[in-house]
Amino acid sequence: MRPQALEAGALDPAGLRELIDTALADFLCGPSPRVPAQRRRVNGGHDLDRTLASYVLAPGKRIRPLLCLIGWYAAGGGRDGEGEEAAVRLAASLELFHAFALIHDDIMDESDSRRGAPSAHRAFALRHRDRADPDAFGRNLAVLLGDLALVRCDEMLHSAGFTHGQYRALLPLVDTMRNEVVLGQYLDLRTAGPPGADAALAFRVVRLKTARYTVERPLHLGAVLAGAGARMLEACSAYALPLGEAFQLRDDLLGTFGDPAVTGKPVAEDLRSGKATVLMALAVRRASRSQARLLRRFVGDAGLDARGAAAVRRVLEDTGARETVERMITARYEASLAALERAPFVPRAADALRRIADEAVTRTA
Amino acid sequence: MRPQALEAGALDPAGLRELIDTALADFLCGPSPRVPAQRRRVNGGHDLDRTLASYVLAPGKRIRPLLCLIGWYAAGGGRDGEGEEAAVRLAASLELFHAFALIHDDIMDESDSRRGAPSAHRAFALRHRDRADPDAFGRNLAVLLGDLALVRCDEMLHSAGFTHGQYRALLPLVDTMRNEVVLGQYLDLRTAGPPGADAALAFRVVRLKTARYTVERPLHLGAVLAGAGARMLEACSAYALPLGEAFQLRDDLLGTFGDPAVTGKPVAEDLRSGKATVLMALAVRRASRSQARLLRRFVGDAGLDARGAAAVRRVLEDTGARETVERMITARYEASLAALERAPFVPRAADALRRIADEAVTRTA
Repeated sequence: MRPQALEAGALDPAGLRELIDTALADFLCGPSPRVPAQRRRVNGGHDLDRTLASYVLAPGKRIRPLLCLIGWYAAGGGRDGEGEEAAVRLAASLELFHAFALIHDDIMDESDSRRGAPSAHRAFALRHRDRADPDAFGRNLAVLLGDLALVRCDEMLHSAGFTHGQYRALLPLVDTMRNEVVLGQYLDLRTAGPPGADAALAFRVVRLKTARYTVERPLHLGAVLAGAGARMLEACSAYALPLGEAFQLRDDLLGTFGDPAVTGKPVAEDLRSGKATVLMALAVRRASRSQARLLRRFVGDAGLDARGAAAVRRVLEDTGARETVERMITARYEASLAALERAPFVPRAADALRRIADEAVTRTA
Repeated sequence: MRPQALEAGALDPAGLRELIDTALADFLCGPSPRVPAQRRRVNGGHDLDRTLASYVLAPGKRIRPLLCLIGWYAAGGGRDGEGEEAAVRLAASLELFHAFALIHDDIMDESDSRRGAPSAHRAFALRHRDRADPDAFGRNLAVLLGDLALVRCDEMLHSAGFTHGQYRALLPLVDTMRNEVVLGQYLDLRTAGPPGADAALAFRVVRLKTARYTVERPLHLGAVLAGAGARMLEACSAYALPLGEAFQLRDDLLGTFGDPAVTGKPVAEDLRSGKATVLMALAVRRASRSQARLLRRFVGDAGLDARGAAAVRRVLEDTGARETVERMITARYEASLAALERAPFVPRAADALRRIADEAVTRTA
């Protein structure tokens, strides 16, 4: 049975998401070919595998797999009716990598929630709250769950049935992406704390953690699987980098001004953790003496309450930082669409990328 | 220049170790082809890469890479003077995987030292002791350092220049090994705590965490790279599994009775953490009522002092658990050597494996 989304005609993001979810479910819930009876016998009831499956299969935007798959179509993948399964598998493996990154990032950032539910380490701590050390135990299990996600991501990649040429083209790119993500998280860790005025550094983190990781690399991976050359990859970057920055800038606004009921994320978390965002860097740079004092006092304070958060938000408004970020988002969105006009992409893939850009900058969650 | 150890003649473990260390140093300290100027520019002085390099390049037994390389020779690798570089790279990548496993295991086990030096999270905490939260910050950086080790392990594997056939044979085996290690650590986490009498479960952990991971899988990987078939792999297992068990049983004895100045590891650590060893399971099973009470009181007690540790050691002696474990080591050592006699290995590799077995069971560190 050929999945409908892969037939000619419009590329429906919802249909593509379904393909990705099915591939993930088959891989994570089917019998593992690698550690067969043993794994099940030894683990008994509480299975790390099963926890990983329910973590990964929880509803999500699947933005990276989606872009990977669209990148494959954009560069001409599937024109001969071949290779779809490998493309979906490559795409789906990005969601496993993302699970690894999220689980470990949440530990490092001490984030208690993710997608409106407890984060992995919190969920484990709650499940084992009868122990003497539920927090440490939860954290330990979550470190291991993240490790398992990366191990199984590799397994999914390794068993995707790529040709040798595809392996040789894909694997260095996969490695580059992973190195960038680790480096981005490292910079995030090193720069968190008191608010800094270094918008350039904040932007570098944005580029590594989001523009490249969330948009450019997935597109590149899909395009490379389809045999893309340098010109095609450059066209991907020209679309992806401004869009990725817009995506992250929107994320930062939502993290500070969004509706927690919609974003699923406590609204003051970015402020409490002192996350080095472009938004904050702009505010710090433009702040009057008293505004700067207020920021220094509240930003990065783990005990920040609703009143303090409101005061910080006022400074972000009054300095015009929020408005500037909105304008930056619009400029990047437009640059991204302009690049799309010039790109040598298969038209129905270009249409899908346009829709994704629209969603990314107007979303509320 | 052809390294000496690769010429015909005896396989000198010290010479092989040098090849492995050189490959690791080249890979970790050379300019990264993947994230070139950027990584250096962005990271400035304190570089996670550099920390990883000094962690991995610190002196060690290199037991897994060594076995991998000898497995390659044993199955006929290098007979045509080809493929040595890929074999050394495969072998060396196991040390990066091991760094990943050790760094994360030490976080989970809250081990403060490793190889006589502070463990990774402790070293980071000491380096950042001026911060408000040095322990949490050190732990976070160590989670990330472990992640980087795994990412770079993949990178080393992916750029080793294997043929398509080698990739197809090696990667599933790599994935199996990694799944086993995660599962072993999971069982370790779940079984730590009050002492249990389940020697069978303790042995299952031993098999996953050490017999397979430390001995069998490295040999298999090397042999598979050389094109080994089922018979050769079975011969590897017949040697490896008993030796791996002997290796771990010796480790457990050293962890409880060894000289901390030689092992580089606080002697009561296994007792404090309540590690589920075969040694402890035997003692629990044979303990009198008062001995059992003593074990329940002291084993798994994070605050265990020298006197308590001495009392536990006395129970391990008095129940005959220590002596039984010594006998188990001897029996396994002999089974391993007997398997070696029957194995279809290249003779100079069999000689090297014999030497490794001798060292593994008689070592004091």
